[in-house]
Amino acid sequence: MSTGIKSISIIGSGNVAHHLGKAFAGHVNITSVHSRNFQTGSQLAEDLNAFFAETVTDILPSDLVLICVNDDDIRDVLKSLPLEMSCAYCSGAVEISSLPVRKNLGVIYPLQTFSLHRDVDLFEVPFFIEANNEFFAQELFDLAWLLSRKVVFANSTDRKHLHLAAVMVNNFVNHIHFLAEKYLKSKSLEFAYLKPLIKETALKLQSTNPFDAQTGPALRNDKVTIEGHLDLLDEETKEMYGMLTNSIIKHHNNK
Amino acid sequence: MSTGIKSISIIGSGNVAHHLGKAFAGHVNITSVHSRNFQTGSQLAEDLNAFFAETVTDILPSDLVLICVNDDDIRDVLKSLPLEMSCAYCSGAVEISSLPVRKNLGVIYPLQTFSLHRDVDLFEVPFFIEANNEFFAQELFDLAWLLSRKVVFANSTDRKHLHLAAVMVNNFVNHIHFLAEKYLKSKSLEFAYLKPLIKETALKLQSTNPFDAQTGPALRNDKVTIEGHLDLLDEETKEMYGMLTNSIIKHHNNK
Repeated sequence: MSTGIKSISIIGSGNVAHHLGKAFAGHVNITSVHSRNFQTGSQLAEDLNAFFAETVTDILPSDLVLICVNDDDIRDVLKSLPLEMSCAYCSGAVEISSLPVRKNLGVIYPLQTFSLHRDVDLFEVPFFIEANNEFFAQELFDLAWLLSRKVVFANSTDRKHLHLAAVMVNNFVNHIHFLAEKYLKSKSLEFAYLKPLIKETALKLQSTNPFDAQTGPALRNDKVTIEGHLDLLDEETKEMYGMLTNSIIKHHNNK
Repeated sequence: MSTGIKSISIIGSGNVAHHLGKAFAGHVNITSVHSRNFQTGSQLAEDLNAFFAETVTDILPSDLVLICVNDDDIRDVLKSLPLEMSCAYCSGAVEISSLPVRKNLGVIYPLQTFSLHRDVDLFEVPFFIEANNEFFAQELFDLAWLLSRKVVFANSTDRKHLHLAAVMVNNFVNHIHFLAEKYLKSKSLEFAYLKPLIKETALKLQSTNPFDAQTGPALRNDKVTIEGHLDLLDEETKEMYGMLTNSIIKHHNNK
């Protein structure tokens, strides 16, 4: 497969812009970068060997404008771009039908968390593709295929479901890690002790389903340990502990 | 460092017995194994090239009896063992002071989740050591040092705190993965799509603290996306979503 998209302009200079920009730069020509943030935008342009467009209207002609901005800003960015420009955005939550109509509008949604200073192997990352016409959808598919072997067509509804699930396994899980760190800190104990466990918890799920991987006092409905834990916690963490413990007990059919 | 403990009998045949037994077998003599479960117990004895003791009283003389049974059963096992036998158990939650007094009683608590069919690299796993006398504590420390370079003395209170934090980052995190899988299944979408994200979420924390690693709609206090998600969820998952979202907003000082 080869894509008809040979040049890309990028709008945005956050984590997604940075990682997709770097990844695509190995395969297509990154012509220009625009960002409201002069510092990160011009740095990204330099890193990608691209022209830095100080205003949206300065971006150079490209086969695709890749919009890597916050969900709330996608609409405004689209409004500022000439209608003949082919555009794709990277959001899980925003429906195509909610945006202003144009000839070619699509989505490239990588289901991954990106941080500025961490390299991520994109080859196994799922990319979900949608567009307002089949030809453009195929072009975006072929473009994403340059980076990953998990490229999938998905409509806005399925993408929203996937994004919601991603919020659970990334945002909520990360916050539970934060609450565990906060708890240990309050007892003058190091969060670092948990790192091998956090890693193994995730790696185990690469080959085991979450139901079978479940262990612990809630699974065993071990009331003495559960009560002992609840006594140690502050109100907020206690509420979280109680809710998730009850949910585990319920789903694993303990009495 | 070298340990005075040259021979071990193991009581139990679950995941912890299996993994610690296999690991110690490379360094000391596993003399006998006892388990109420004949099948898994005799199999473990065979795997470890040890005698299978059908009753507790049949276990062979050993420098240490390593008790790898459920928290609730530790007391009964200890009562059935002659007082001159040196014993250690592997639980995070059970306090030494809650158990019957004997000459040498201690704890080797590995902070990790073990599954029968998954090998775990113990070398980086923290082992928390406690005993009712200093000499025996040092012997247990030196024994654990055979397996890991993260061996730490910790009293029963600290061990309880660590166990509680472990419940959060393993049991609760795993259950959130289960709820995400359940949600995706209800929408005919594959859990497998989440695996690279689950892995990266954990790996990122090896070098970033959870506060800095946080991303997502709750961090941005993106009310439109949050409301959209809540509308999609069943009551139970909605409660979990709302509680964790509010907690993220609170801790990250959004307005």
